[in-house]
Parts: sequence; C-alpha cells; structure tokens
Amino acid sequence: MENREIPYKIYLSEKELPDSWYNVRADMKVKPAPLLNPGTHRPMTAQELSQVFCEDLVAQELDNETRYIRIPGEIRDFYKMYRPSPLVRAYCLEKKLGTPAKIYYKFEGNNTSGSHKLNSAIAQAYYAKKQGLKGVTTETGAGQWGTALSMACAYLGLDCKVFMVKCSYEQKPFRREVMRTYGASVTPSPSETTEIGRRILQEHPGTTGSLGCAISEAVEVATHTDGYRYVLGSVLNQVLLHQSVIGLEAKKAMDLYGVKPDIIIGCAGGGSNLGGLISPFMGEKLRGEQDYRFIAVEPASCPSLTRGKFAYDFCDTGMVTPLQKMYTLGSSFIPSANHAGGLRYHGMSSIVSQLYHDGYMEAVSVEQTSVFAAAEEFARVEGILPAPESSHAIRVAIDEALKCRETGEEKTILFGLTGTGYFDMVAYEKYNNGEMSDHIPTDAELAAGFAGIPRFEGNEF
Amino acid sequence: MENREIPYKIYLSEKELPDSWYNVRADMKVKPAPLLNPGTHRPMTAQELSQVFCEDLVAQELDNETRYIRIPGEIRDFYKMYRPSPLVRAYCLEKKLGTPAKIYYKFEGNNTSGSHKLNSAIAQAYYAKKQGLKGVTTETGAGQWGTALSMACAYLGLDCKVFMVKCSYEQKPFRREVMRTYGASVTPSPSETTEIGRRILQEHPGTTGSLGCAISEAVEVATHTDGYRYVLGSVLNQVLLHQSVIGLEAKKAMDLYGVKPDIIIGCAGGGSNLGGLISPFMGEKLRGEQDYRFIAVEPASCPSLTRGKFAYDFCDTGMVTPLQKMYTLGSSFIPSANHAGGLRYHGMSSIVSQLYHDGYMEAVSVEQTSVFAAAEEFARVEGILPAPESSHAIRVAIDEALKCRETGEEKTILFGLTGTGYFDMVAYEKYNNGEMSDHIPTDAELAAGFAGIPRFEGNEF
Repeated sequence: MENREIPYKIYLSEKELPDSWYNVRADMKVKPAPLLNPGTHRPMTAQELSQVFCEDLVAQELDNETRYIRIPGEIRDFYKMYRPSPLVRAYCLEKKLGTPAKIYYKFEGNNTSGSHKLNSAIAQAYYAKKQGLKGVTTETGAGQWGTALSMACAYLGLDCKVFMVKCSYEQKPFRREVMRTYGASVTPSPSETTEIGRRILQEHPGTTGSLGCAISEAVEVATHTDGYRYVLGSVLNQVLLHQSVIGLEAKKAMDLYGVKPDIIIGCAGGGSNLGGLISPFMGEKLRGEQDYRFIAVEPASCPSLTRGKFAYDFCDTGMVTPLQKMYTLGSSFIPSANHAGGLRYHGMSSIVSQLYHDGYMEAVSVEQTSVFAAAEEFARVEGILPAPESSHAIRVAIDEALKCRETGEEKTILFGLTGTGYFDMVAYEKYNNGEMSDHIPTDAELAAGFAGIPRFEGNEF
Repeated sequence: MENREIPYKIYLSEKELPDSWYNVRADMKVKPAPLLNPGTHRPMTAQELSQVFCEDLVAQELDNETRYIRIPGEIRDFYKMYRPSPLVRAYCLEKKLGTPAKIYYKFEGNNTSGSHKLNSAIAQAYYAKKQGLKGVTTETGAGQWGTALSMACAYLGLDCKVFMVKCSYEQKPFRREVMRTYGASVTPSPSETTEIGRRILQEHPGTTGSLGCAISEAVEVATHTDGYRYVLGSVLNQVLLHQSVIGLEAKKAMDLYGVKPDIIIGCAGGGSNLGGLISPFMGEKLRGEQDYRFIAVEPASCPSLTRGKFAYDFCDTGMVTPLQKMYTLGSSFIPSANHAGGLRYHGMSSIVSQLYHDGYMEAVSVEQTSVFAAAEEFARVEGILPAPESSHAIRVAIDEALKCRETGEEKTILFGLTGTGYFDMVAYEKYNNGEMSDHIPTDAELAAGFAGIPRFEGNEF
C-alpha cells in the first residue's frame, strides 16, 4: 500500500467528510470526572448546566457512552466551505532536515479564522440557533476562537458578543477588526461592563487580562441576558467531540494510502486541537487494536500538564464556573506577559488530562525562542507561516525527525498544524529582532496560581 | 454533464496540475507591441533586456509564438505546496443573493503570500537561480508580491531585496515582518539608498511613494549590483504567462463538470491575475471556438483601462525602464492617498491592453466603498475574508448575479478571488467605522500623469 505515490497534499472529497463525530469517552475505561457545582461539590445536573450552555451541547457534554454522534447536515454544509482540510506530506521539510522520518501534518489554517476553532464554533452556533436563542457570548485570547465564532454567527444570523483579553485586544487590532467585519461586538477584558470585570479591575488595576477573566465576564453576560448562552472554544468535552473531525479526516486520509503514524503530536492549550487530532487513533489504542505514541506539547511558560496538579479547579479566574477535574496551574495563574501567542490557559481538557494521567500519552514543554526558530525553519521550506501555538508541535516534530536522522529509523510522524500566524507578526517581529526571551515560572509563581481554590474530599493537591 | 453534483470546492489532483503554461500571445492576431528602448525608440533586443532580467525570462518575454511553454519540474514541485488551488462554487453567496446565476471563483489566497503572486514569483526566482545569480530585487505595494518573492527566494536560497512603497511599509508593518521572516531585506521607497530615490525625495519631499518609484529603485540596484537581476510581479508578458496556470486549472476543473462560464471577471491592477485567469478561455475566443464575456474591473481612483490612454509609457516613475505600449494614466500619476489596497499601478499589461483595444474584453471601474460592501457581504456567507483588490471582482460578480435575479437568466459567472485580506485590516477598519470615502480623479489630475512622457511617431496621446 505504502508504494502508492503519496501526493504533497491529500484532500478527501466532500463525500468523504465524516458524517459523525467520534466521542473518545465511549472507549475510555476511566471516564473524565464530572463537572462539580462549586457550592455543593456535587456533579452538575443537565438542568444546572442549561443555565449557561445550550441544551444539545449540555447533552453532548454529559454523554460518556455514545461512540458516534451524527453531524447535522447544516453543519456539514458549513464544513464544506473549508473542509475536508488537507493532510500534507512535508516532503520539503524532510529534505531540509535530511531525515528518514516521514512527516505529515493536518493543516487546519485554510479558513479565515486561521485555525481549527471553526470546527466547534459552527457546531455551537448551530445548536444555539436551533434552540431559538438570540445570541452567544464568549471569550477570546489570541483571537482565533472569537473570529471563528463571529464567522459562524454571521453565517447563521446570530448575535455574537466577544470578550477579548485586553493585551490581545491592544496588540492585535486587526483580529478585532476581522471580528467586527463579521458583525461581532468586541469588548476588551477585564471591562467595566460586567460586575466581575469591575471587581477584577479594582483588585488588579492595570491588569492586561487573561482568558480566565474573559470567561468570567462572558459567562456573566450570558446568564444575565435573555436569549443568550455562553460558548467556549476549548477544554470542554463537547469541543473535543466537534474537533474529532480533524482526527477522523486525518486517519481516513492516511488509511487511503496505508500509512500508520508512529508518533502523533499536538500543541496543547486547552486541549481541543490535540484531543480532536488524536481521538480516533486514541480510540484504537484504548480498544487495544493499535499502538501509537502521543505527545502533547505545551509552553514552558504555561506548563499545565508537565508541572500542574490533577485536581478540581475553576475554568475561570472569577471562580464563577463549575469545577472541572483537570491538570491545572490554578485558576489564579496568569502566564508571564513575555509569553507570545496563545496556549496561555491555566487548565487542560478533562479528557486529555485523564488520558495523560492514565499513561496513554506523554507531555513535553518547550521554550518559545526554540518554538519560533522551528516556525521560521518550517515556513521557509513548507511555505505556510504557522501560528505560534501550532509551532509548538512543529518544534517537537522536528526534534523527533532529527532523532530519526541519528538512529536511521524511518518513523512516521503526524502533527497538527492548527493555524496560521498572519495575526501574530508582533511576536514574529520580536523574534526577528532578537528581542524574544523565555520565561520558566518558578515553583513559587506556580504555587500562587492555587490561591483560593477550594479543597475538599477527592481534591488532593 | 451539468447534472453531476458539483461540490463546494473542486480540487484537481496534483497529477492534473498543468505541465505547461499557455501563452495567449500565440493566438493573438495583433500581438502586443514590443518594448522600446527609451533612448532610441527602437524595440529592445534580448541583449538589452538581459541587463535587467534573467535570460530565460527575457526569452519568455519576447516569445509571441510558442503556444505552450513547459513548466520545469522544480517549479511544479513548488506549485504542489499550494496548488492546484480550489475552484469554489459559491453556493452560499448564490443563496444569499437569491439569484439563479451560478457563481464560481478560483481562489488563489490559500498560501502565505495570500495571493496568486506566488505563481510567478517561484518561476522568476527559479530562472534567476538557474542562471547562477546571487539574488533579485523587486518592488512591492500592498506587499503580496514582495511576500511571494521572499517565499520563493527562501525556498531556493536566493537573496531578496524588496523596495516597499513607503505608505504600505508604514501602514502594513506585519507584511514587512512576514517578508523578513522569509529572510528578505525590506526598504521603504523612496529611500536614500539609491540615486533615483534621493532624487525623488528631493523633488517630492514627504511623498508616500508609489509602485512606479519603487520599481525605479529596484531596477537601479539590480543593474548596479553584481549577480543581481530585477523581477516584476505583474504587467510583463512573462508574468501573464506564469499566471496562466490559474486559468488552465479553472478551465480544467470546469471541463470536468461540463460547465462553461458565460462571464469571466477579474480585478485589474497590472493585469497579471486577470490575464492569467482569462488566458485559456481567451484563446478559445481568439481561435473562434467559443465565445465568452470578459470583464476587467479596476478602481475608479486608478482607472487605466477606462480612462487612460493607449500609448507608449514608462513602467516606472523614475523613467528608467523600457517604454511599454499599454493603457496608462501616465507614469507620473499617483493615485489618491485615500485609495485603500492595491490596484494602484498607472499602467496595464500590454497583452490585456491590446485585447481590450481590439474589443475582446470589457472594462468597468468601481468605487471603493461599494467594493468593501461587496467584500463584507461575501465574507459573511462564503467565509473567506477577501483582499480589497479581489473584492473589485466580487463587486461586479455580485452585480451581474443581481441582474440575473431581475431577468431570471441562469448565467454562469466565474471570477478570480486573487487573495485574502488579512493584512488589509486598516482599510477594513476604516470601512467598518464609516470613514471610507471615494475619490474619482478629475480630468486635470489625470492629465498631470503624462508630464514628461515622450511623444514620438506612433505614440498618439
């Protein structure tokens, strides 16, 4: 099979677009722990969750059993605007590295949001529309998720209110403008428009914000405005479910050519891209059908898997969300301002956390100067200018390919290229000018992230 | 044939990538007029042109006879990084407009240069490398061509010196940074680094520059630096030859589904995208095999086809290049600073000019506020955020589709979506804030563009 000539880019046809998402929880022996009510420390009920999230999404969030969930036709039609996305054989990078490894990447950046985020944005907007809502609220950091949601809402005619982390709002006026072009309202967070925003501004004057703050504000607006619900771009089970379309397509494309990856690599912020990419492969591993090595790559400056605690924590800084069991740096943790790009969330998807905890995957952390070096090397031979987030995966893919050059092993490496870096040129400029540095948090800085997190039975940190 | 279900995106396989460019000049009864030596007013010889351009490119420039010119394997390999590009059926736009028209667009923005420019950049860089040169110089306005050339040079290991129109350099620091990431040096033009730049700065202190100025500087550096040649991103015959890959792919994709376009629309700055898109269709029309309507769309603020003169003129402001017969506003014309985006070149490809002059195509001019309105309408339903340049074609495609809604005609419309607008958010912001206005040059402003252009026999303006 492997003899069949593999093109630079494998495009599935639109008919081969998956008709169902794959729910990896169905194959997990140990399920991710349930969300807890922060007052009672008891599992959140569907009814409680429906105050915040759309009903169909609550059902997906709580469903640990159904292996395949049908993708509605309207969502599939939207997917056809930019999917199936290409699986690229990195011939040029392999040649440049002089490696016997075979490198593939699933490229999710060929859409205006510039990332994989659109896969879940359209799904969440669709269910909001179906429920008859007027609009949705959300947060955005680097801006990819906010852009994706704006696009989905514009397409469906829903209102979209985005709270954008203040430092990104200021550093990325163009991202803000793209969202406005798609009709969204964009507010820098923390803002004076919410109670929680005012409180955070009072307690931390001059703060540049964090995803955790922006989530608090978006949740407040959603729960206090008639006909609105909150939507989240990562971390949640439902988001990983939607993102499984990445892995399903990647696997189908590889199967067409009889290729099996030895190593699968994804960058990890909240875990949505990583979880989506690995899902169907992980399913095979969980069912004992096939073995793969999975590597989650996170920034050394925000190392939730490699240096965080596996415990119940809030998803937000304002401590208004349910508690989620995950690898976390503590919801009070705010990464160093010198950290460029996304992947700055304090926690990690429960699914990814549980799989990591149970030994099904590895995690490594990398420093940003080495990430931008990999990004530049990649861009110059593969053409695509990668997002800083995606470049974490590139770094480790290159490292693994270089190991193969040493050992002579012809490993097959698959990584997720989640997006493009067109809106990240401030960070690239810093790197090009030799002004970028690394920041590895001290143990004391990490400990501070847990201030105020509740301790209770089963929350051993 | 038309009954076969047409997907949202038609992707040819890499094997279907054209193996030759199509040279429309071979089928033109009246060939484009030759370049003239500005001193003698006699046709430039290959030897004279080789002082400025690479030898193989000079041969392509002068070749009015060879219908198909083979694409070297190395260029085809590079093309495979981002080609074949998708031909998209604009189902969502059709639905939004409520038109019986069938709208297709050839999308050339799925690469880091964000435009079709890469098609010629890699070809020109390849021939420079083949000739053993050290590097190339060029100009860039909006920055797409400079980015494309930087990418091609990084891939081949050539040095790349870009003169960037000063107002773009300042308004688009991110474009500049992308070029630097690909290893290019970028100088704002006019600059103090060249004799012509110093002269222009002295004569026009505070000028924000123009493509014509930047060309003068790039040519000066190329002709005064050992091992360098100048390359140009549009206008020239060789560039239209390379860009024919757009039309060849579009035609092959349509032929696969038995679709014939009634109207083919392209935005027109220097004419490279338009010329490339229409070439193979125009060939059929020139040979009397099939009729098509072709529409060139240009900005009302820089209307070379609709209000210019068909005459010999310089390609640059400094009047150092050969004379080219074309529709021109005069090489001293500088479009209003209020004009956003590209398509600000004073002249037009000789091929396009001749075809227009001979009645094979139409031209219309549109105002920029209506262009951005079309861009936004398109983005919200088709997902892609278009470049302002490309949006000129969108405007007219929408207008034609709306006419079909009136008449009930089921016309098939094909337009070129040359690129994405990710680096044009300053212009979008202006539009979103309601601060954009239009500028239609007065007759006196247009007349000023011809100051100093030589008059001689056969140059009747």
